Amino acid sequence: MIRSIKEMSAFSRLNRRKARSIGFVPTMGALHQGHLSLIRRARKENDLVVVSIFVNPVQFGPRENLKKYPRNLIKDAELCKKEKADVIFYPSVKQMYPLGFKTYIEVKGLSQLLCGVSRPGHFKGVATVVAKLFNIVMPDVAYFGQKDAQQSVIIKKLVSDLNLPVRIEVLPIIREEDGLALSSRNVYLGAKERGSATVLYKALKEARGLIKEGVLKPRYIIARMKGIIKKERYVKIDYICMVGALDLKPVKKIKGKILVALAAWIGRTRLIDNIVINA
Amino acid sequence: MIRSIKEMSAFSRLNRRKARSIGFVPTMGALHQGHLSLIRRARKENDLVVVSIFVNPVQFGPRENLKKYPRNLIKDAELCKKEKADVIFYPSVKQMYPLGFKTYIEVKGLSQLLCGVSRPGHFKGVATVVAKLFNIVMPDVAYFGQKDAQQSVIIKKLVSDLNLPVRIEVLPIIREEDGLALSSRNVYLGAKERGSATVLYKALKEARGLIKEGVLKPRYIIARMKGIIKKERYVKIDYICMVGALDLKPVKKIKGKILVALAAWIGRTRLIDNIVINA
Repeated sequence: MIRSIKEMSAFSRLNRRKARSIGFVPTMGALHQGHLSLIRRARKENDLVVVSIFVNPVQFGPRENLKKYPRNLIKDAELCKKEKADVIFYPSVKQMYPLGFKTYIEVKGLSQLLCGVSRPGHFKGVATVVAKLFNIVMPDVAYFGQKDAQQSVIIKKLVSDLNLPVRIEVLPIIREEDGLALSSRNVYLGAKERGSATVLYKALKEARGLIKEGVLKPRYIIARMKGIIKKERYVKIDYICMVGALDLKPVKKIKGKILVALAAWIGRTRLIDNIVINA
Repeated sequence: MIRSIKEMSAFSRLNRRKARSIGFVPTMGALHQGHLSLIRRARKENDLVVVSIFVNPVQFGPRENLKKYPRNLIKDAELCKKEKADVIFYPSVKQMYPLGFKTYIEVKGLSQLLCGVSRPGHFKGVATVVAKLFNIVMPDVAYFGQKDAQQSVIIKKLVSDLNLPVRIEVLPIIREEDGLALSSRNVYLGAKERGSATVLYKALKEARGLIKEGVLKPRYIIARMKGIIKKERYVKIDYICMVGALDLKPVKKIKGKILVALAAWIGRTRLIDNIVINA
């Protein structure tokens, strides 16, 4: 485990100079099978694997509970060891954001849509910390989960716009047997809420089914999804949308690669989920 | 000369892997002795020297004349050759800012002061292009001129906040015999304006003299500087300030490392100049 930014940079510089490839999995800890699938892929494709664990305060809004975000460093370290990661990079908030920190990166447009509406500033925080981590870890490839679909689109845009020398890989969502997408936030759910939460994936499957049947109007599909979700107790929809998978712009007709994405409150926990459909 | 971003990255990656150090001088072309002093220093301190020539549209305001910015690629190339630079990186605007470009870097606070007041958005454009160039060229050291004092402070902050793996060197202002700071924009000056322009450095020397005499009130010193400049025809002050050399905050008392900076219009040409005083 490396805690110091300097030490992490020195490690990466040394190993890149030796032409060893570095695969990087940036996380906020509370690792689950979704994260582990990223680490496994990184392990397969690179000489060295670095996993960062950093709960980034800058991507939490003032009303979002940063302090209660699940943390379990000991278990996380065991999991990383089991998956044969070489380094856990675990910097302090003080090191990442020293007094007088002033520099922020914004991917305009893409950051103000979908989750950006109810989480203003969130993706600015994400873009800033990801760029910082890339500059410190200097990976050849970085791995992200498709569950955070908007995040992946934004990070790819960040990398291409700023010419960051790293390749981005986005891996599929890992789900529970009953379809719930794995998320560190699932631990917040009470038993009844946990039961209700499966409705999110049910609604996404409904969308897929309707498109397969030839339904072409997003508005109709979204209405059907809303109908399904609204029947469920404890669940309040934040948004449901059908957008272009690359530009996140709402589509008027189902055609090409489409992202069906949603966010909903299950009690006091906000969850997101999505599917991509090639229509 | 390299025109493609891909080729530039490949060149740098290859050479860094061979442990060759890269010194980088980012410029907007129209090279003068100030730039050449940076190239010479880079040549002395590194295995390879890359000079970029890119007139960055994003740092020009809508009323600033981007199109008329002096360009002289052939002469620039000769000068770079004479100073034994290894590569001129000369990318197109289309490559640097392809359609749909969305990502900007802002160093808050520092960018809104001094020149940031009359040039809103300027330093956002500077921070963004410098980060892009660093990511493409991957230098060990980058060289900037003290003439753009605020730019240097902002770039140092950018590098430290975003953990960019590059060292920043700021070299002294080069002046004409009569004291005028070298600038690509000096070519805009008519003969009479050129005569008047020397008043800027005279005012800065007045400040230095007053401080040496023990004057401690910035307000008094600035008034004296204004008095000198106002006597001169063709010259209109944009700002004169005395600020901390690191944080650019106005000082109330002369103490420590102080930046005396000014901007003025000489006819239709805006020039800047500054001195640093250790008081």
